[in-house]
Amino acid sequence: MPEQNLSFVLEKANSVRFEDRPIPTLQSPYDVLVNVKFTGICGSDVHYWAHGEIGHFVVKEPMVLGHESSGIVTAIGDNVKTLKAGDRVCMEPGVPCRRCNRCKEGKYNLCPDMAFAATPPFDGTLAKYYILPEDFCYKLPDEMSLEEGAVVEPLSVGVHIVRQAAVKPGDNIVVFGAGPVGLLCCAVARAYGASKIISVDMNEERLAFAEKYAATQTVVAQKESPQDAAARIISTCDLGMGADAIIDASGAEPCIQTAIHALRVGGTYVQGGMGKSDINFPIMALCTKELNVKGSFRYGSGDYSTAVQLIASGRVSVKELITGKVKFKDAENAFHDVQASKGIKTLIEGVEDAPAVNGDSTAA
Amino acid sequence: MPEQNLSFVLEKANSVRFEDRPIPTLQSPYDVLVNVKFTGICGSDVHYWAHGEIGHFVVKEPMVLGHESSGIVTAIGDNVKTLKAGDRVCMEPGVPCRRCNRCKEGKYNLCPDMAFAATPPFDGTLAKYYILPEDFCYKLPDEMSLEEGAVVEPLSVGVHIVRQAAVKPGDNIVVFGAGPVGLLCCAVARAYGASKIISVDMNEERLAFAEKYAATQTVVAQKESPQDAAARIISTCDLGMGADAIIDASGAEPCIQTAIHALRVGGTYVQGGMGKSDINFPIMALCTKELNVKGSFRYGSGDYSTAVQLIASGRVSVKELITGKVKFKDAENAFHDVQASKGIKTLIEGVEDAPAVNGDSTAA
Amino acid sequence: MPEQNLSFVLEKANSVRFEDRPIPTLQSPYDVLVNVKFTGICGSDVHYWAHGEIGHFVVKEPMVLGHESSGIVTAIGDNVKTLKAGDRVCMEPGVPCRRCNRCKEGKYNLCPDMAFAATPPFDGTLAKYYILPEDFCYKLPDEMSLEEGAVVEPLSVGVHIVRQAAVKPGDNIVVFGAGPVGLLCCAVARAYGASKIISVDMNEERLAFAEKYAATQTVVAQKESPQDAAARIISTCDLGMGADAIIDASGAEPCIQTAIHALRVGGTYVQGGMGKSDINFPIMALCTKELNVKGSFRYGSGDYSTAVQLIASGRVSVKELITGKVKFKDAENAFHDVQASKGIKTLIEGVEDAPAVNGDSTAA
Amino acid sequence: MPEQNLSFVLEKANSVRFEDRPIPTLQSPYDVLVNVKFTGICGSDVHYWAHGEIGHFVVKEPMVLGHESSGIVTAIGDNVKTLKAGDRVCMEPGVPCRRCNRCKEGKYNLCPDMAFAATPPFDGTLAKYYILPEDFCYKLPDEMSLEEGAVVEPLSVGVHIVRQAAVKPGDNIVVFGAGPVGLLCCAVARAYGASKIISVDMNEERLAFAEKYAATQTVVAQKESPQDAAARIISTCDLGMGADAIIDASGAEPCIQTAIHALRVGGTYVQGGMGKSDINFPIMALCTKELNVKGSFRYGSGDYSTAVQLIASGRVSVKELITGKVKFKDAENAFHDVQASKGIKTLIEGVEDAPAVNGDSTAA
Repeated sequence: MPEQNLSFVLEKANSVRFEDRPIPTLQSPYDVLVNVKFTGICGSDVHYWAHGEIGHFVVKEPMVLGHESSGIVTAIGDNVKTLKAGDRVCMEPGVPCRRCNRCKEGKYNLCPDMAFAATPPFDGTLAKYYILPEDFCYKLPDEMSLEEGAVVEPLSVGVHIVRQAAVKPGDNIVVFGAGPVGLLCCAVARAYGASKIISVDMNEERLAFAEKYAATQTVVAQKESPQDAAARIISTCDLGMGADAIIDASGAEPCIQTAIHALRVGGTYVQGGMGKSDINFPIMALCTKELNVKGSFRYGSGDYSTAVQLIASGRVSVKELITGKVKFKDAENAFHDVQASKGIKTLIEGVEDAPAVNGDSTAA
Repeated sequence: MPEQNLSFVLEKANSVRFEDRPIPTLQSPYDVLVNVKFTGICGSDVHYWAHGEIGHFVVKEPMVLGHESSGIVTAIGDNVKTLKAGDRVCMEPGVPCRRCNRCKEGKYNLCPDMAFAATPPFDGTLAKYYILPEDFCYKLPDEMSLEEGAVVEPLSVGVHIVRQAAVKPGDNIVVFGAGPVGLLCCAVARAYGASKIISVDMNEERLAFAEKYAATQTVVAQKESPQDAAARIISTCDLGMGADAIIDASGAEPCIQTAIHALRVGGTYVQGGMGKSDINFPIMALCTKELNVKGSFRYGSGDYSTAVQLIASGRVSVKELITGKVKFKDAENAFHDVQASKGIKTLIEGVEDAPAVNGDSTAA
Repeated sequence: MPEQNLSFVLEKANSVRFEDRPIPTLQSPYDVLVNVKFTGICGSDVHYWAHGEIGHFVVKEPMVLGHESSGIVTAIGDNVKTLKAGDRVCMEPGVPCRRCNRCKEGKYNLCPDMAFAATPPFDGTLAKYYILPEDFCYKLPDEMSLEEGAVVEPLSVGVHIVRQAAVKPGDNIVVFGAGPVGLLCCAVARAYGASKIISVDMNEERLAFAEKYAATQTVVAQKESPQDAAARIISTCDLGMGADAIIDASGAEPCIQTAIHALRVGGTYVQGGMGKSDINFPIMALCTKELNVKGSFRYGSGDYSTAVQLIASGRVSVKELITGKVKFKDAENAFHDVQASKGIKTLIEGVEDAPAVNGDSTAA
Repeated sequence: MPEQNLSFVLEKANSVRFEDRPIPTLQSPYDVLVNVKFTGICGSDVHYWAHGEIGHFVVKEPMVLGHESSGIVTAIGDNVKTLKAGDRVCMEPGVPCRRCNRCKEGKYNLCPDMAFAATPPFDGTLAKYYILPEDFCYKLPDEMSLEEGAVVEPLSVGVHIVRQAAVKPGDNIVVFGAGPVGLLCCAVARAYGASKIISVDMNEERLAFAEKYAATQTVVAQKESPQDAAARIISTCDLGMGADAIIDASGAEPCIQTAIHALRVGGTYVQGGMGKSDINFPIMALCTKELNVKGSFRYGSGDYSTAVQLIASGRVSVKELITGKVKFKDAENAFHDVQASKGIKTLIEGVEDAPAVNGDSTAA
């Protein structure tokens, strides 16, 4: 029997399999059916794959993985106006309820009833087909490839973080962590006009990439007190009274502590990285420097479309972050790559169409 | 020889004395000489008195104490236009440089060159006379007493905290700590339109006062996990998804932890209270709930004038907070009161004029 | 045959009739059926009634009038969780698309696909039954009457205007126009902590009411230049450099011009009133005083719930604005009242249940 | 007698002369003496020169002209820490009182007691020497020339306007007027990440320059109704529902009217250009589209330093705007150039040092 909607399913921690599921049908006249073409893998996918859970989200039923995808529209609902079959799109993978106070005040990323791809109990995008509402599919400009489209998801994470940090032209910024999100935060901060963009990491290879990519300066993290680390960053990078804004994309306790001490009075800190639930935190420095400390959770109003425009306009380049591609049937390799910190971003290609038999051909 | 400018001086930890100093002379044509009439004492005064230092501020030279004062104008500089001798004023005790970036962006409370009364090396207001620029003296409306004028300082602390918390009509607010600042935060939150105002403290007597004064509900703090405490506050007070904003006026680690867990997604936390420099902090809750966590340091643009108007308009009442008055010569008693948590606010009266001898009289 | 869903229908300008329509059926599992109990009438209703159009909104098909309503829930959809039959609610009469950029950025009042009651082609609420999504029905607290519930709509207009004006404690505010919206703006500005609230109108009777109701001062509008009028308001009301914020609830050209001149540098102006499409406007005063001039259109995120809380908490009183009530069968009288500026707010009662026959009774 | 402080003085409308004035002496320990090296001329200079007044600012006493200058520090006060003799600086020409509410809230450009160069009664910078406080002199980075330093003033006007417009990455912007300020607004909008930047002017030559310089598209203004002009801009430039923000740098009534109609709902308009004091204005479009309409007056907190950084970092280029240079003795020619719209920016060189005689030399 031919494959209809081949899907990459996590059964439980460390146990995945391919499964042929029915092609999903449009649930609403605003829905769009997308043939998924590329999917990136991030730390949270790998965490589910390795542990079967993240915090209170536990994989209890088999769940399709993946949430960083682009694809081609294959069917549209009756009320869809801006998309048609054949359009290339990137796919925002979390659909909010649209009815709660958070949704109505413009913060749909905080919706408590969010249905987010590959977050239990919702299936992800590592399948041949996936359904989304029209307004969560963003048409790719001609100058953007589907591969770049798959990177819009992590770039949107970076856009949201940088907007939380209120970066503006002339600001001096420090970004802790030079993984994919940290690198993208550097690139977005530059697009938002930041003056100095300092990337901090323990891994010198990553820092070398960061400097070539988007950072104006880099600092190698060392074993030292947070106060000493902060003083070293400030003096090395000539930050005067301290940084205007600092982003953590590492989740590491020493980075967070250092960040608070390296901010100027009135500066802004954004927690983007995930790590230990509780850490030792310099609360009095926050108080007396009157800092603004913010969380950043996924992406919301305007982030995805901004990310598309940043790539399309050339203000942010993401091609060099795509360091590998694997076939759909080799999907698990991409998880191994991320787990081993191999490369920056490995993409999984979409399900290949079955070879045409007897003159048959399948239109994508 | 007659007293000219009797002053209450801290020589070092636990060692105070009265000293007759010269009457200060106006340094600038914008200066005003004030005959101090009432001075309140707060925790920071007592901390200097007991320990001779707060953080990196160390009393190295004898320093006049006091910074919560009101008084009567006795002389004005040539450029002073809005005040004249005889005017009753409350005195904002910190004068910024007016030239740095923080001053020019409207956050003079963050000025690194702030000259703040009774913060080393600057003398405080517990003297017969004190000099301030015109724009840091606020004329008291007729309906306000000089005693109320001395409470404008802690009320301004509360105004600044509540403004940092962005409290607006309809918000549900929790305030940890029912000392003077916590109580004033409740009162200001009410004036800013907060719906529920929940005061939390271990001391049931204070809570009883808080409920009479400005809180709509109170919760007795208990020994329990921060998560349990948060759940208890939310359910007891019917806060739904959590509080819109939480203010800490306690500085206590369990309160801060509880507060973070008791906030709704997207909520705002303000650190007003001073305590341990580093604490165990639920950083992932901050990240995934995308909280806004802010420090609040002293008071700045518009806070003092707002505080005066809140009292003058009757929106905030401070009379019931003044639980004692002592003569200037008994000033140290006020410090003992605060240290012993006796009453809410003890005021020290101004230096009494020497009795007229042989027809002499001293003009105030 | 008994009446099922008696409705008050505008056929064309100046031509209304009662029509028995089918009881509407729930369209979505989130819908609620409301038995309408009270409906207020405002200027826009009267404008449609008298002219059959407002701007480019033209009544082409018969349209039920009314949009300021409260009622009792009679049926709920399967997904409705917070309401049940019998609940008393006020009804927010405009339902946005929830999908466009404006909706998703938290400004659903600017949704271009808004379906607004009694705005062509959408029927209004002057019927026995009306359907709304759950999240546009607000349960009335026990202490609020259904009559007050019908005034939540114009109060929400005032809340939105005052929020646009960014009124905060201590601000001095001027409100032009002392009709229902102008009066409510005064009341809301007071609830938001405004210090001086100055009501300006030509009608001295209205001003007398405004002063009793919520204004701290009133000024009678006169024939004079806008500059002179502004100077007179500033000096009469002791506004120093000018008002912090000015709200126009009149739509009158001389008021708008006067307002711009009466603002302090950096002040805020909000256009709430509707009038001529183009007026002579002091644009250079706007430029050199760096004013913020904003429109205010209907109400959006949080406005309705804030309005309910303002009434329930006693911060805003609306009872005294309800100056008349008419039976449903006399609905047109309410339109005549508004047209004649008779009273402040006339409510139309809901359709009466048919009298019970032979011991029958109909539950509402 | 040798020249000491040769100055270019406006006596009254159309009457200028050179005058040798005393070298000014430092008034405060925070002051800096600058040897002026380059001065640009703008429309307001020319207006004083031609008419002797702007609005209520009237030249009653002879006044030195000029306010767009750069120079070299020649002496510093005792408290000056960040500058020394020989430093190259650009000069922010308006010094506020630092004491009023506007100054203390971070809007010193709105200070009513501003002392602004070449605004009566304050002398301007077209002299050999000029005194400013340290914090209004900005040290030029090595990569910036003194000529570029003189353009920081109009660039700061553009920075302030663009910040008022709240331009952010992805926004579509229209700028009316392609004179120096309009061009700089385009360049700053690009540096702030704007997506489409549409320059509108009647002068096609200017538009050609704008497109080469910073605009992404241009539109030739025509005789047509504002509604038609708006529709044409929107359709020509594919702006969908309208522009996100529109800046007027023309002051022309038809431009302002067109701008209001060309904005999307919720869009922002900034009045940067100066023209007629009162114009016919589409106030109902402002109301129902809920626009934000703002003035922009000079520049304030952070604008000058941002402008310096934009040039130094290469994000904004100003060299191509400098289309002419004249000797100090030919200063009046620069005024003729501006009046005749000849070139974009003509700079006046500083007073030349007298040739050394008998081994004498004058240190700059």
